[in-house]
Amino acid sequence: MENVTIRMLAEKLQLSTATISKALNNSHEISEETRKRVQDLAKELNYVPNPYASSLRKKSSKTIAVVIPEIADSFFAEAINGIEAVAQEKGYHVLIYLTHESSEKEQAILKDFQSGRVDGVLISVTMETANSEHSLSQLSKELPLVFFDRVCEEVATAKITTNDSEAAYIATKHLIEVGCRNIGLLAASEQLTIMRERIKGFYRALTEYQLPVTNNSVTYFTREANQLLSDTLRLGKFDGVIATTEKLATNVYEAAETLKLQLPKDLKVIGFSNLSTARFLYPSLTTVYQPAFEMGKAAATLLFKALKNSHVTLTQQSMEIPSQLFIRNSTLQQ
Amino acid sequence: MENVTIRMLAEKLQLSTATISKALNNSHEISEETRKRVQDLAKELNYVPNPYASSLRKKSSKTIAVVIPEIADSFFAEAINGIEAVAQEKGYHVLIYLTHESSEKEQAILKDFQSGRVDGVLISVTMETANSEHSLSQLSKELPLVFFDRVCEEVATAKITTNDSEAAYIATKHLIEVGCRNIGLLAASEQLTIMRERIKGFYRALTEYQLPVTNNSVTYFTREANQLLSDTLRLGKFDGVIATTEKLATNVYEAAETLKLQLPKDLKVIGFSNLSTARFLYPSLTTVYQPAFEMGKAAATLLFKALKNSHVTLTQQSMEIPSQLFIRNSTLQQ
Repeated sequence: MENVTIRMLAEKLQLSTATISKALNNSHEISEETRKRVQDLAKELNYVPNPYASSLRKKSSKTIAVVIPEIADSFFAEAINGIEAVAQEKGYHVLIYLTHESSEKEQAILKDFQSGRVDGVLISVTMETANSEHSLSQLSKELPLVFFDRVCEEVATAKITTNDSEAAYIATKHLIEVGCRNIGLLAASEQLTIMRERIKGFYRALTEYQLPVTNNSVTYFTREANQLLSDTLRLGKFDGVIATTEKLATNVYEAAETLKLQLPKDLKVIGFSNLSTARFLYPSLTTVYQPAFEMGKAAATLLFKALKNSHVTLTQQSMEIPSQLFIRNSTLQQ
Repeated sequence: MENVTIRMLAEKLQLSTATISKALNNSHEISEETRKRVQDLAKELNYVPNPYASSLRKKSSKTIAVVIPEIADSFFAEAINGIEAVAQEKGYHVLIYLTHESSEKEQAILKDFQSGRVDGVLISVTMETANSEHSLSQLSKELPLVFFDRVCEEVATAKITTNDSEAAYIATKHLIEVGCRNIGLLAASEQLTIMRERIKGFYRALTEYQLPVTNNSVTYFTREANQLLSDTLRLGKFDGVIATTEKLATNVYEAAETLKLQLPKDLKVIGFSNLSTARFLYPSLTTVYQPAFEMGKAAATLLFKALKNSHVTLTQQSMEIPSQLFIRNSTLQQ
């Protein structure tokens, strides 16, 4: 099929290409009548503006990118819904890019953005974030860029986060109050700020209750965590664990089954998770619920503010939205 | 920051822009030594080819699009992992677009593709698919396009599906065999081929066991299904239900709680779902597990075949990969 061009419209209507272009862009220089004739024909012939050509001119793609590590986590699914709610209103396309926790992939994606494919970027970084610091810093000077949840502290731009340290503190305190004395914090990567914050909150609660750090410890898990988790639970003899990712929470249920540990009698569990099935699990899972939708919405709102007005300084616009602890049967006192 | 252009490289090295361009594209017309000088400087100055300009020339964006209705469903999360596994190997970016079940949004996205933003499209259509039929037909003539899971029958291109009719037949048969006599098939939209196939399999099992259609019926749910579902379960007096979407399966657990129905004693449930928590639910959920990863992989493999060789006729390449029934406690005979 031949593409309909501005030139073709101009020939058919016996007008200059400049007039056609202005009419399509609703310029006030063109009479109402001519505008309507041009727009009607463009519609009839299914004229599509070429985004590459027009991007070279206008430097706008009406597109924003969302870069996230994975989608099999309800946090990101909800955050994207928050982002899309704002983008839809502004008439922007949202492109979702997955890094699968690889900083190499992350950098390839960021490099792609330098060439003008998108107008702005919302990003939640990989666990190997330190490697991407330079690329992120550079990109943030060229395009509006806003972090949400997983941030890169060193990059000077807006960051939408939740109160990770306080949330972990409250979760740990809850475990202590229902009788746990050997608590394990199951962590994913010490490179992530959110993890370091959660660890900080964990230790704060231990200190406050004067629990020895020898029995209460932080353990790191990679993605294939099942075997390691079984070992840890067996060796560590924890009576309570806090899973700092949704995936790790499911892993604890799997490990408990393997080790024939009864939840919550032998082991109490709290998950940082927005799983919609949390309350239907056996036992129902006590969760730290993160305001994912609101965080996505806040990040997108800031991004569009910066896209609309280039004088908005994103560095001064960070925001923290609190998480909530939902207590369920997985931490029931026996 | 000023963008580094081919012209700037040419000036710095005292070479023509044509030579620079050829050297960057590894042309054999350019000596090894010159190629190295050009590429080293390009690297040093962080030269990025402009994809818009080069797309106008080469008509390739090294990008494929995946269009799906939502991401909060494990089926799509797994399918995307299958797609990305293939794309990564081929050095392509994957852009994910969400339609949120709106055919209007779907059409806006498809229109965007007409202008050359991506090289190929993998799509699982919205529940309002009939409205997009025309746009899909048109696009499939301009770009390689492969359907996965939710297809549009009328569009002549490859379709990667699972055996929906057979899977629903087996699920219904299982419910009958554990004693159900009033079975409800909870469906999402009769516009979707996968739904019509599941309904076909459902009726086939009823006929085979000579169960009356008056007591065993198909009920449609929109997205905000909770209240409607409660009403239906109360009114319909089903002793078994098949939830044809993951979300509807969770809705059944919610409705059962509200109505104080005991699962599986009062009501048995099967879900079409790839939920990783299915076996930890209370009761653990019997599921029709769809080969999402394999379907995504097969769809992407076909797409790249067509991208590599324009003589590949996608219409002759459809494939069906079977689903599996995992029997758990939610259909336990009491």
